[in-house]
Amino acid sequence: MNKVIITAALTGAVTVPTQTPYLPYTIEQLAEDAEQCARAGAAIIHIHARNPANGAPSSDMELFGEILQAIKARTDAVICTTTGGGVGMTPSDRVRVVPMWQPELATCNMGSMNFSVHPAARRFSDSDYKFPWEKQWLLGSEDFIFPNTFASIKHFLIEMKKTNTRPEFEIYDVGHLYNLDFMVREGLVEKPIWLQFVMGVLGGIRATLYDLTHLLDTANRLFGPENYHWSVIGVGYPQQFHMCTAALMLGGHARVGLEDNIFVSRGKLGRNHELVEKIVRIAAEFDREPATPDEVRAFLNLKGKDQVGF
Amino acid sequence: MNKVIITAALTGAVTVPTQTPYLPYTIEQLAEDAEQCARAGAAIIHIHARNPANGAPSSDMELFGEILQAIKARTDAVICTTTGGGVGMTPSDRVRVVPMWQPELATCNMGSMNFSVHPAARRFSDSDYKFPWEKQWLLGSEDFIFPNTFASIKHFLIEMKKTNTRPEFEIYDVGHLYNLDFMVREGLVEKPIWLQFVMGVLGGIRATLYDLTHLLDTANRLFGPENYHWSVIGVGYPQQFHMCTAALMLGGHARVGLEDNIFVSRGKLGRNHELVEKIVRIAAEFDREPATPDEVRAFLNLKGKDQVGF
Amino acid sequence: MNKVIITAALTGAVTVPTQTPYLPYTIEQLAEDAEQCARAGAAIIHIHARNPANGAPSSDMELFGEILQAIKARTDAVICTTTGGGVGMTPSDRVRVVPMWQPELATCNMGSMNFSVHPAARRFSDSDYKFPWEKQWLLGSEDFIFPNTFASIKHFLIEMKKTNTRPEFEIYDVGHLYNLDFMVREGLVEKPIWLQFVMGVLGGIRATLYDLTHLLDTANRLFGPENYHWSVIGVGYPQQFHMCTAALMLGGHARVGLEDNIFVSRGKLGRNHELVEKIVRIAAEFDREPATPDEVRAFLNLKGKDQVGF
Amino acid sequence: MNKVIITAALTGAVTVPTQTPYLPYTIEQLAEDAEQCARAGAAIIHIHARNPANGAPSSDMELFGEILQAIKARTDAVICTTTGGGVGMTPSDRVRVVPMWQPELATCNMGSMNFSVHPAARRFSDSDYKFPWEKQWLLGSEDFIFPNTFASIKHFLIEMKKTNTRPEFEIYDVGHLYNLDFMVREGLVEKPIWLQFVMGVLGGIRATLYDLTHLLDTANRLFGPENYHWSVIGVGYPQQFHMCTAALMLGGHARVGLEDNIFVSRGKLGRNHELVEKIVRIAAEFDREPATPDEVRAFLNLKGKDQVGF
Repeated sequence: MNKVIITAALTGAVTVPTQTPYLPYTIEQLAEDAEQCARAGAAIIHIHARNPANGAPSSDMELFGEILQAIKARTDAVICTTTGGGVGMTPSDRVRVVPMWQPELATCNMGSMNFSVHPAARRFSDSDYKFPWEKQWLLGSEDFIFPNTFASIKHFLIEMKKTNTRPEFEIYDVGHLYNLDFMVREGLVEKPIWLQFVMGVLGGIRATLYDLTHLLDTANRLFGPENYHWSVIGVGYPQQFHMCTAALMLGGHARVGLEDNIFVSRGKLGRNHELVEKIVRIAAEFDREPATPDEVRAFLNLKGKDQVGF
Repeated sequence: MNKVIITAALTGAVTVPTQTPYLPYTIEQLAEDAEQCARAGAAIIHIHARNPANGAPSSDMELFGEILQAIKARTDAVICTTTGGGVGMTPSDRVRVVPMWQPELATCNMGSMNFSVHPAARRFSDSDYKFPWEKQWLLGSEDFIFPNTFASIKHFLIEMKKTNTRPEFEIYDVGHLYNLDFMVREGLVEKPIWLQFVMGVLGGIRATLYDLTHLLDTANRLFGPENYHWSVIGVGYPQQFHMCTAALMLGGHARVGLEDNIFVSRGKLGRNHELVEKIVRIAAEFDREPATPDEVRAFLNLKGKDQVGF
Repeated sequence: MNKVIITAALTGAVTVPTQTPYLPYTIEQLAEDAEQCARAGAAIIHIHARNPANGAPSSDMELFGEILQAIKARTDAVICTTTGGGVGMTPSDRVRVVPMWQPELATCNMGSMNFSVHPAARRFSDSDYKFPWEKQWLLGSEDFIFPNTFASIKHFLIEMKKTNTRPEFEIYDVGHLYNLDFMVREGLVEKPIWLQFVMGVLGGIRATLYDLTHLLDTANRLFGPENYHWSVIGVGYPQQFHMCTAALMLGGHARVGLEDNIFVSRGKLGRNHELVEKIVRIAAEFDREPATPDEVRAFLNLKGKDQVGF
Repeated sequence: MNKVIITAALTGAVTVPTQTPYLPYTIEQLAEDAEQCARAGAAIIHIHARNPANGAPSSDMELFGEILQAIKARTDAVICTTTGGGVGMTPSDRVRVVPMWQPELATCNMGSMNFSVHPAARRFSDSDYKFPWEKQWLLGSEDFIFPNTFASIKHFLIEMKKTNTRPEFEIYDVGHLYNLDFMVREGLVEKPIWLQFVMGVLGGIRATLYDLTHLLDTANRLFGPENYHWSVIGVGYPQQFHMCTAALMLGGHARVGLEDNIFVSRGKLGRNHELVEKIVRIAAEFDREPATPDEVRAFLNLKGKDQVGF
């Protein structure tokens, strides 16, 4: 596919409201951002739930459903739900979104790892924080492990298969490709494989072209180039646009959004749709236009918007 | 250094006695294997403690001390203690060996990850197992995370510094090099950095030359070639000898032993010293002879055999 | 240097006038394009001589001098003269520009290789050609070797040293870096080394990110990252903008222009300054602005505009 | 194929008799070495002709035929003739062996390049040389180009096709793989493709694992791993055994012999069959045994020993 699939990751579970006033966390904000991003060119909206009162990541499944419904009402983008959750959620908490809301697409994180943002706390004094939970959220990540054992990955894949939800495989390091290869050999993965390289998390592989080309060479050796499609996340600025632009050249796809990066240019905070607009603008320089949601559905063999449970 | 530093990893915490009759786990067996390995060319002996009664990995610090003393009495090899422990041990359990026994060298595992051997259980029926704990040990690893958060890595490094124990950085994936780079920037790491690439664990990077050269290029970019030395582990057969032989060509060093691999040639179980003898034989083809313990002490700037606490 | 050095390669010796009406070959056209490119952001103008009557590559040194003077009169850009010449010129013909005109910067091609454009002839019928020489020029390249032996490279470097002309090392393949390393060890190269990776010539390495990262890793191993700066050429469209954009991310610099590529977007022919404008536009997305000629002179340690022989 | 195909390159056109007393150049010496190498495990004998009187490379086709006949009489190894010739031979001289002697296998060098051994002359004083031609042969290579244009490669492939001689593609740099890809797209290459990576010539890519893995990743991207087999040459010592041992690990094959390297261990000159014995010994450590000539014929789809013209 020559068109580029743009995913907008609106909010995530890592960015804190203190970092940017543009982080959406109410249902209305998320729906509004989703609509603007879709209009700007995003074909997939990636969703985490947040407590509307204080922006804290939430595992409330009813709330998650309301967010999904609100976004569905405002756009026909593919909605990709997280199963990564946030600090403090168990894998069981995290996967519940799949049987309950039966999305078209959901993430499947391919290994356990450190996942830390504790250095970010150094930029703020106590009085900077908008909400009481934020400081400890940042600092606590120094001792955090993002748990995705082989047993839980297997469980997630079985749950997704039951609801015909396609997995988006989150690859944070080279070993995660080998973990996925193990799951392929166990017969738990259907083709085409949809990979999302997550580069630049403190704890995983960094967002460099050296590492991206190595990941691609590794995926080629393991799966064959005809059996997978891929997108990339660069965490932080300017990594988000570096990795996504590399994807434009290499035949891959791109995820942007405030989950991964808060700047639209050096030192300038941006809104979600501005991040989408920027990658669309760069894509135009490389003769690639954004894919539509229905083009994505055909390309990734998704079940369709009318088959979800919300 | 043109000579090759050979580490013998005698027993580890993953191999189970059912897999090979040669796995040492009594104090006497460990001391005997250590002596034979040293005689064959190993300059470093890497040690985990096992329960002498049934071979199960043990966190008993008194036992650990007896093993260290027994080995010290039979060889002047550098002793490198694990701080990786085994399933079920907390990081606090694992690091205790450092303040208590103050070794010259101790491992420092550079990230959290899945670490599984559950597929090995498929090769055995219930009646094959020598000891009751083994089956569940293998199967349970499907849900195991090897925990090494940034907070605990920092704690380990501070403890090692107190006793002038040099860290051997265990690198299981590319991200672990970036984690180490973070620690270098935090001022917690002295030079020369001593890296041990651990390749082939189910959960980490695989043992391939593609990955080894990428790890080395990454280390060069991060630290500069003049600031680190490295050794490599290939888990399994023939990976142990593939990776160690690559190290012979690339100016690196080699770790062999039953912790990582049980075969000395295809289908033929070997003893620890036979694994050492094989890599010494291959090294001779490449004009590299084994370094002595004192050459290693000078090369890695270790405090000396008489400065340990056992 | 965070700023990006943009070189405009106005005409070269390979593109034929039939391919694009925008190819400059008269003195006036070259001077006009140079001025427009400099205004658009190019700090270096790369020059080959062409016969003003029919656009054929020329080894006429008087003509070369007139071009240099015309460009110098219209811009203060650094002028980098070719020593690559064109089909039919001997190395002696090619290097004469150095003692005669004593430029600040001149190319030094780092190895012999096939250099062919013969497949381009398939796009044209006999009646398409503007000038009689063009068809045979294209077809003849199937049997052409671009000659740059070790003896002639050495000769070129000695000539450049005499006039304090800095070499721009043209690297068309990995082996050319090793050739350069040989010259460094022979004591013929001063630092900082200024590399120009030429990617995408039929006969050399292709213009891919896989190859670019390998070239950079190789250069790091050979020279150390602190001892060289680099720019890149991607031959053809979209390779010109792919490679130059990668350079923007990787801390490198960029060469564009009709010597290497004739399109400004898919299927749309562009003028030299439009190619410069495009890379300047992309650079702005990556927070890099064009370096000025004087910034380049300081950065590459050039002798200065007033020290040339024209 | 798990077995390893060992090629013995007995004499080449680059090594001079002064460098080693073991270099075979009479018909009898070549036949004797061929027989010993075949007995030691070589399945392919690679042949250049030399003047029996003084060891100088020769383009005498009658002499070439006598050598081929002598070797055929003493061994059933596959004979692979050079079409690379030596300094001073034209491509037309070089390819004549194909129509005239119709071998099973012949080299096809995939690009023009510098190919120099001039630094070797620094090791000898005038009185060291055994034959008058040697000194100038070494020194003259500083100005030598090994000519293999696209036109001549095409011509060679057409000639080989006529006699059902299979090409062994000599790849001296990354660009040569791209040149081969061009020929594949032109419809001039049959599968399986048989690649010989030639690493370590002064003028081409160096013999490093970094470069070998990059060449393999490139070949995978271009041809797909199922469409080619490969062998490797490391020029010089210890590179010959480094590259060949890497091939043992990576599923490739190995060429040794005095054409490429004269030492069997550091500082110790070796005979051809001793070089074969060494790689066979190393292969045994990696559980790979030498392929027989008939296994090679089946594997590479060769026409058979009885279909040659000598």
